Amino acid sequence: MTDQRSISLNTDIGEGFGDWRIADDDALLDIVTDANVGCGFHAGDPDIMRRTCDIAAARSISIGAQVGFYDLRGFGRRFIEIPPESLTNDVIYQFGALQAFAMAAGATVAYVKAHGALYHAAVAHPDYATAVIRAIMAINPSLPLMCQPGTPFAKAAQEAGLRTIAEGYIDRAYLPTGLLVPRGSEGAMITDLNESCRRAVQLAAEGTVIANDGATIAMPVDSMCIHSDSAGAVQIASAVRAAIENAGLTVAPLHAS
Amino acid sequence: MTDQRSISLNTDIGEGFGDWRIADDDALLDIVTDANVGCGFHAGDPDIMRRTCDIAAARSISIGAQVGFYDLRGFGRRFIEIPPESLTNDVIYQFGALQAFAMAAGATVAYVKAHGALYHAAVAHPDYATAVIRAIMAINPSLPLMCQPGTPFAKAAQEAGLRTIAEGYIDRAYLPTGLLVPRGSEGAMITDLNESCRRAVQLAAEGTVIANDGATIAMPVDSMCIHSDSAGAVQIASAVRAAIENAGLTVAPLHAS
Amino acid sequence: MTDQRSISLNTDIGEGFGDWRIADDDALLDIVTDANVGCGFHAGDPDIMRRTCDIAAARSISIGAQVGFYDLRGFGRRFIEIPPESLTNDVIYQFGALQAFAMAAGATVAYVKAHGALYHAAVAHPDYATAVIRAIMAINPSLPLMCQPGTPFAKAAQEAGLRTIAEGYIDRAYLPTGLLVPRGSEGAMITDLNESCRRAVQLAAEGTVIANDGATIAMPVDSMCIHSDSAGAVQIASAVRAAIENAGLTVAPLHAS
Amino acid sequence: MTDQRSISLNTDIGEGFGDWRIADDDALLDIVTDANVGCGFHAGDPDIMRRTCDIAAARSISIGAQVGFYDLRGFGRRFIEIPPESLTNDVIYQFGALQAFAMAAGATVAYVKAHGALYHAAVAHPDYATAVIRAIMAINPSLPLMCQPGTPFAKAAQEAGLRTIAEGYIDRAYLPTGLLVPRGSEGAMITDLNESCRRAVQLAAEGTVIANDGATIAMPVDSMCIHSDSAGAVQIASAVRAAIENAGLTVAPLHAS
Repeated sequence: MTDQRSISLNTDIGEGFGDWRIADDDALLDIVTDANVGCGFHAGDPDIMRRTCDIAAARSISIGAQVGFYDLRGFGRRFIEIPPESLTNDVIYQFGALQAFAMAAGATVAYVKAHGALYHAAVAHPDYATAVIRAIMAINPSLPLMCQPGTPFAKAAQEAGLRTIAEGYIDRAYLPTGLLVPRGSEGAMITDLNESCRRAVQLAAEGTVIANDGATIAMPVDSMCIHSDSAGAVQIASAVRAAIENAGLTVAPLHAS
Repeated sequence: MTDQRSISLNTDIGEGFGDWRIADDDALLDIVTDANVGCGFHAGDPDIMRRTCDIAAARSISIGAQVGFYDLRGFGRRFIEIPPESLTNDVIYQFGALQAFAMAAGATVAYVKAHGALYHAAVAHPDYATAVIRAIMAINPSLPLMCQPGTPFAKAAQEAGLRTIAEGYIDRAYLPTGLLVPRGSEGAMITDLNESCRRAVQLAAEGTVIANDGATIAMPVDSMCIHSDSAGAVQIASAVRAAIENAGLTVAPLHAS
Repeated sequence: MTDQRSISLNTDIGEGFGDWRIADDDALLDIVTDANVGCGFHAGDPDIMRRTCDIAAARSISIGAQVGFYDLRGFGRRFIEIPPESLTNDVIYQFGALQAFAMAAGATVAYVKAHGALYHAAVAHPDYATAVIRAIMAINPSLPLMCQPGTPFAKAAQEAGLRTIAEGYIDRAYLPTGLLVPRGSEGAMITDLNESCRRAVQLAAEGTVIANDGATIAMPVDSMCIHSDSAGAVQIASAVRAAIENAGLTVAPLHAS
Repeated sequence: MTDQRSISLNTDIGEGFGDWRIADDDALLDIVTDANVGCGFHAGDPDIMRRTCDIAAARSISIGAQVGFYDLRGFGRRFIEIPPESLTNDVIYQFGALQAFAMAAGATVAYVKAHGALYHAAVAHPDYATAVIRAIMAINPSLPLMCQPGTPFAKAAQEAGLRTIAEGYIDRAYLPTGLLVPRGSEGAMITDLNESCRRAVQLAAEGTVIANDGATIAMPVDSMCIHSDSAGAVQIASAVRAAIENAGLTVAPLHAS
């Protein structure tokens, strides 16, 4: 699913609950092309999901199921030791709930993305990867999984026959292996917006990234992640999109590819 | 959708949560033809929903979405003053979650039924009826609503163009109007199993019921409700099914009609 | 408990959940003297409660239990038809949880205040008033209830022998009866900050308020409510406090009186 | 706190939620002397807590706070990676809520016991042990912790200056080290009721147990655990109590010692 002339920008959206909100969703939905919508387990509720799907559909933004652990209090960032069968069922449940809103808006859920601690668990523990993969197989084997290329999670999905959407990061340093410099390590985070924009253009135009040893490595990505809970997320998203477009490239949603 | 030679038996199923259970679901699923499956708001969780849908699909039992207020603690029996738009969204969410499990089992959700306080609210308050009806219209206008014929809820659904599945009760006395004798009134509950069986046969064979003034009134029903949380629910279900079949009538799931 | 030379300023505090926040608690805790702390049912969680109690204790701010319906999604603003015995138990539970944090901070819960839909239910339905009152009697009959004077809720509490803390509003118009002009009616909300400050001084200095017919009526209050979720809540609180102090009056927490 | 002539019998109680129940609480409360009451995070709700405390107080049964992870769905049996400060706050919250019901019943919470995955986490991870211990220190440093003697959790509590209540098991085999044969290992579970009774008497009378290598080892315990969710829990509890009393020993609640 990689095409270096068109790239998508995805972000986490709909991560409020009841009266609570985290990000400036409306502004972000003016910039990104793919919305990873919280499904009510770690964030999101039926009202927010409905509204988000309606906006996304009206703007031809792709809707992704941002699935996570059942943990509103911890925002899905706490690892939970859940039996694999239960995790599979939790992912199916979340997907189904979101799909109903997508369909009510005349759209469909275009991909699945694991959130927070579930994402990390799926990368680190084969059982968790398998559980998420089984959920997608049970839902629809042609539904793609958005994840970082080269991780055990991505490999397991591909081995299972799933399509994957390769995700790149503009605010994280890469190791020569193509994996990320772990959070907390020196230089892990890229906080300079100009540098993020430069990396975004290189990722989009050439499918490469400069690793933290200075080497240029292949990193063919389909979508770039904008962290919606970063300070200045809207400005970052806006600057990155402008940089990509100014480089003569197209920003387009995944479902258009 | 009424056909007096074939009748369905529905019951509430999957009303546990985590380790907790209420009814003997496995035994009931050997007897009934239509399962009103809890969707996680007032009862049910993804594991229970998956298992229930798998069993139902394997036995050709129709799967209905038993939707309710978001109230595990009160088992959906407490009225909640929820804005109509939110209620619509809550119903869509619950339906979608169940639909994903039904589809994973090779089936589809065949109808919607409101549970507990939501059912009573939909009968008593036009706003609640409309909110549920709007949810079904948003999901799929050809998806039928199971409810008691003659109620304001049933009428509103029909006026909105929805199909309704007329439900009859074998353990409740009827007023001459065709509505139920209110709980708590003398004679409201029919506790004699032979009488319940007799009424079941009459409902199924003739589409009539004897009201509490002795008059025989028309009551064409598509399905009869077995209350799964009654003491002896399995025996009641079993006896009612046997009585209907012994009368030469067919017990068949709704999706077969 | 009325003393017109000293007045307290209370506000709702700790109304976040997990990563979510509503108000600028830290700024408000620099201004108010009494903190109505959410107890986890409609808002608040153990981390927020601990931190809020620690700050309140360190600043000699009174800690009140802001009790509500079990409804995070609806922020406690949705009426729930709960059996009175359950409501009593819900209030005891919330109080106890908060009391543990207050005691860990070397303080104690000084009063109870009903939040949102529970407050309105307690004013409108004697059963709900009685349920809250019974909770306080079970906890500690000398624990005061903060509420609006003259309401059926306040009267029921007084008849039951409870102490009440009379609360006044600086942003709501009063009827000649001493009750509030209902929200939604013309002139119900006072949005001019100067007028709010003027009313605050009059309430504090004279124990009177000018009703919406122009008459000056008695309104002896112990505390004035600052709505923490209003736009500009911090500025309003700051201006009101300055106005009262500039008038030569003392702003002091309830537990000091 | 060990006295071999008097022993207590504790069990988990109040582990329902809303309409759901697990064990025959009323029958167990006729037999045991110490009730580990669920506090609403993994099981239990305000209604159940109130009723359980009322019964316990009326029968002079000690009330213990059975604290667990915030996980109704997993019944507190799923490990959750929670920051230690949050865990401390969760324990304080649960204790406080229960204490309010105990006090309303004229009693007080006599001890704390960690449930399920939290118990195992506290034995296996020093951070979790410390978090629970800090909660007790914050609540009341003289409040004892019930746990298995010899575990890292028990040692950490003692080093922190907490009192511990040594708990013994009648249905689990012991290693020569005094720790338990891990579940799943051969012979880990003692399923013969006569053998359980024999071990109960030996534990109570002599403060010893026969390890799985045949050696008699010291095991001075204050209380013996009856697993309320075992099949036949009521019969087991009844038989064990009779065996101890027939041996001339006293069964008495902890708060009496």
